[in-house]
Amino acid sequence: MDAVKPRIAIDMDEVMGDTLGKMLECYNRDYADCLTVDDLRGKKLRHVAKCGSEVSKYFEDPSFLRDLKVIPDSQDVIRELQSRYEIFIATAAMEVPASFAAKYEWLKEHFDFIPNTHIVFCGDKSIINADYLIDDHAYQFERFRGQGILYTASHNIEETRYPRVNNWREVADLFLK
Amino acid sequence: MDAVKPRIAIDMDEVMGDTLGKMLECYNRDYADCLTVDDLRGKKLRHVAKCGSEVSKYFEDPSFLRDLKVIPDSQDVIRELQSRYEIFIATAAMEVPASFAAKYEWLKEHFDFIPNTHIVFCGDKSIINADYLIDDHAYQFERFRGQGILYTASHNIEETRYPRVNNWREVADLFLK
Repeated sequence: MDAVKPRIAIDMDEVMGDTLGKMLECYNRDYADCLTVDDLRGKKLRHVAKCGSEVSKYFEDPSFLRDLKVIPDSQDVIRELQSRYEIFIATAAMEVPASFAAKYEWLKEHFDFIPNTHIVFCGDKSIINADYLIDDHAYQFERFRGQGILYTASHNIEETRYPRVNNWREVADLFLK
Repeated sequence: MDAVKPRIAIDMDEVMGDTLGKMLECYNRDYADCLTVDDLRGKKLRHVAKCGSEVSKYFEDPSFLRDLKVIPDSQDVIRELQSRYEIFIATAAMEVPASFAAKYEWLKEHFDFIPNTHIVFCGDKSIINADYLIDDHAYQFERFRGQGILYTASHNIEETRYPRVNNWREVADLFLK
């Protein structure tokens, strides 16, 4: 019998897929603005956008998440991680129920080596039974039973409570070296 | 601060919603048969249906799960359980991705007191971090970290490895008395 592998749960938005990049693209186009990721340090897009929290309207489009760019190196590193860890994808899909199909199809297109059994659509990630959770939202770590690993995003750069990774090469260094 | 409540995760199909009843209704109509639940003791519908495993085709219809009957007493008992336990719904939706929307809408219609944060669409339920899992599929208990509670269904009557409940009144007796 194989030894039990430690488990890593991985968030999708802003960790595997470039949700913020797509938001900026749509927002800049529709509001004739030219915001970049560097304009958001420590803030969310809604705090600096001309339209405020109305930017969240983009999530209401069921296809919004379907064509996100893949975050660099995420495919290669997650595939490598699978040799030593049991990998689950855990995404807070319940915040935007219209996005279920697009999220699933995007995963199947870009991460077809993750079996359906290991994909989780949830809300509160304290329900995830894993040793590690790689996520850009620190609040998800507060009740998580394992170790939270904060994936850097513009909105979390002031967070200091958790180990941080800035990119997928740093994830590889942390888990595979 | 409130004391931490023990957690119960609850399966949907054949525990909260009468999936088999809908299957039998569709199958009997389409194949001019008159099978009942009593004909299935210890077997799955595909083992006794004229069309064999083709019965699973009904799941391909995205709306198939939208109008399931609610299993008697499940609403009242789950609402009562919420006063003493943290309740999550954990359904193996990844087996039938076409069913995401119907499952979500059905839950919102019949169990609107379950917040979105506490709904989980998954595959392998060993990813669920809960103290108890009420499910009709014993295989889901094998790697589950808590205690599995088998909800009786025609296909599981010969299973003896786990505590069993036959209906929601028995769930109430087990957890609330």
